[in-house]
Amino acid sequence: MTESHDAVDVIRTKRDGARLSEDQIDWVVDAYTRGVVADEQMAALAMAVYLRGMDAAETARWTAAMIASGERMDFSSLGRPTADKHSTGGVGDKITLPLAPLVAVFGVAVPQLSGRGLGHTGGTLDKLESIPGWRAALTNDEIMGMLDGVGAVICAAGTGLAPADKKLYALRDTTGTVEAIPLIASSIMSKKIAEGTDSLVLDVKVGSGAFMKDQDRARELATTMVELGERAGVATTALLTDMSVPLGRTVGNALEVRESVEVLSGGGPADVRELTLALAREMLDAAGKADADPAAALDDGRAMDVWRRMIAGQDGDPDAALPTARHTQDVVAERAGVLTRLDAYGVGVAAWRLGAGRARQGDAVQSGAGVEILVRPGEPVAAGQPILTLHTDDEPRVARALEALDGALEVGDAAPPVGEVVLARISG
Amino acid sequence: MTESHDAVDVIRTKRDGARLSEDQIDWVVDAYTRGVVADEQMAALAMAVYLRGMDAAETARWTAAMIASGERMDFSSLGRPTADKHSTGGVGDKITLPLAPLVAVFGVAVPQLSGRGLGHTGGTLDKLESIPGWRAALTNDEIMGMLDGVGAVICAAGTGLAPADKKLYALRDTTGTVEAIPLIASSIMSKKIAEGTDSLVLDVKVGSGAFMKDQDRARELATTMVELGERAGVATTALLTDMSVPLGRTVGNALEVRESVEVLSGGGPADVRELTLALAREMLDAAGKADADPAAALDDGRAMDVWRRMIAGQDGDPDAALPTARHTQDVVAERAGVLTRLDAYGVGVAAWRLGAGRARQGDAVQSGAGVEILVRPGEPVAAGQPILTLHTDDEPRVARALEALDGALEVGDAAPPVGEVVLARISG
Repeated sequence: MTESHDAVDVIRTKRDGARLSEDQIDWVVDAYTRGVVADEQMAALAMAVYLRGMDAAETARWTAAMIASGERMDFSSLGRPTADKHSTGGVGDKITLPLAPLVAVFGVAVPQLSGRGLGHTGGTLDKLESIPGWRAALTNDEIMGMLDGVGAVICAAGTGLAPADKKLYALRDTTGTVEAIPLIASSIMSKKIAEGTDSLVLDVKVGSGAFMKDQDRARELATTMVELGERAGVATTALLTDMSVPLGRTVGNALEVRESVEVLSGGGPADVRELTLALAREMLDAAGKADADPAAALDDGRAMDVWRRMIAGQDGDPDAALPTARHTQDVVAERAGVLTRLDAYGVGVAAWRLGAGRARQGDAVQSGAGVEILVRPGEPVAAGQPILTLHTDDEPRVARALEALDGALEVGDAAPPVGEVVLARISG
Repeated sequence: MTESHDAVDVIRTKRDGARLSEDQIDWVVDAYTRGVVADEQMAALAMAVYLRGMDAAETARWTAAMIASGERMDFSSLGRPTADKHSTGGVGDKITLPLAPLVAVFGVAVPQLSGRGLGHTGGTLDKLESIPGWRAALTNDEIMGMLDGVGAVICAAGTGLAPADKKLYALRDTTGTVEAIPLIASSIMSKKIAEGTDSLVLDVKVGSGAFMKDQDRARELATTMVELGERAGVATTALLTDMSVPLGRTVGNALEVRESVEVLSGGGPADVRELTLALAREMLDAAGKADADPAAALDDGRAMDVWRRMIAGQDGDPDAALPTARHTQDVVAERAGVLTRLDAYGVGVAAWRLGAGRARQGDAVQSGAGVEILVRPGEPVAAGQPILTLHTDDEPRVARALEALDGALEVGDAAPPVGEVVLARISG
């Protein structure tokens, strides 16, 4: 077949700071998926996009082209509204686990197609895989069955959704072009729009433990994604939420499942419960259930009921004991005072090095590994009192975890100002 | 072996606008040559360099790293000064042919390692290959033998010089990163410095038929290259020369050899003779022969003697008839007046389409094809008088050549101002 465009022309257009035409975008995304545009050509284009940007219309077209590269799911036969949540990733971010069953309590179908972790942020599937028997890979029929029967499903995203994104994401990872907002936004939104949800809530993390370190960039990303969702007919809102401190008191796979179950029992750390409820209210509002009372559903056991059926529906045993690590070691306070700093990035890297995360796709993770947070910022501490407990199956990993924590904890005299979990809300 | 750097770190450094360290440059050029840094990573880096730039020290280090990727030649055993010339490429630029033997007349050794043409500019080797029997590929021993015995040699550059540049140039060609001045300058200068000449004169072309369309960019390129040469201990000067009009009265391989022989006979078009002499004086000055009279050596046959021995030394027959094209067709003036415009780019593309050039490396060229210029700007013309004669072996090629000439010629009432051939001189 004769190609309708030349890759070098497309690259030059963006390199020289001009807009890409709709035709150029459709062609280059499709031709890259087909292998007609080579990796080195897409890498040069991605760098040009990184440094020159894409406007809203270009980004929307790019997203549509990535959606068109694969299959789309369709939940309309359920006869119920669907709502989905996406987090840009943080340390101790287990919110999907209590959130999906909680929203399903109110008759909203929640299809949470999720991924595994890479680097210092954990993956939802890795967490759930610490539950004995639970399996992440479902067929499309199984997904529909779960949504129809249980109302919520958390499972692996199929490879058929937005294959262009899958290929491009791997390329960006090795070519220093990950952090471009139009490319991040289109990557996330192409998968979420292809999933076919009616509404979407984005949890855009800001702070040391997040992908976006500063609020202006996080706001720009959130605004771009909300606009992409709205253009595609998906009711989309975003919350900017704090990720300078880990969420809750656990970081690590089984440790986070345990904490999620506490939240589903009406307890758990205040910040985890608060963010779960804030996101639930957004999802319920978008699904036309503004009157729902999600706090009550956590307290009275309805969310826990859905959780148990959701886990069992994917062959997990909700009553099984969770794996624990073979070795634990405390990190203690050097002096008395109040914890003034607990850096999310440092704790995230420590948990990763203890075995909770992976450096490369396909690496195994330890279910029991991670960091337990005994003292949170603002809480008093005595000299010698444990602040953290490190969990790992391999004792030699502790030394490098401790290096990651160097400077991540600080004990002072006065409590720091109380930080808000939800920093801002962005809607279309 | 453990790699001392990570490609993504190097890419990010430049992407974010910082300087690359000497260590980063040495590593990335070497690792790319070894295949450890992938094409897509180098493409992203090349685009970052394109858009962020490299300063003089970075460019010098990059050049040195490309030189270090291959072998270096050494002409010191000749016991004579060596001088080399490089042109950035133009339409009708046959200057190397008369220039090399002319400079050799004065006891300066001229090693002209040259290339083949691509696109609308011709290659020196393609021109000489129209001489029956002449061969471009010489061993290093044969090159030394020619320099020792004849004093000048024009031949193909070996593949051992700056292999990193060879690999990078091919990549830049497909990734829209050709036109970055630091990359152009380091590409040219790495090969020229690796060739081991004592002095170098650069002919940097400016205008429609040149790679650089405007004088500011051409001056920046020239300045960058002169500085790279001086840093490497090669006495380097540059002339900025006009390429808005083709050089001389012929464009095409055998046609240009014929014109070169006219210049070597003391005749030929004034602009070709003028530029040959200007470049010869630069080379002779740099070689400590400021008293030499190159005009006399063209007029009295000494340059022709060296030419004949140079051609014969590479198995060419200087007395053989040159190939001619099977078909010719004139382009005539539509009205009487004076030729006010003869666009170098249009004529270059026409010659290329007639068969004088190639679209891809490895394509064959026609020796006899090209454009003969019967009337140059400023010369009077009668209605119906031929301005150009097109030469080709394939008559059907004429139509597309005529399209390329659309708008390239203009007949007016008043002669245009006489343009200078040499626009500026840049030295260290």
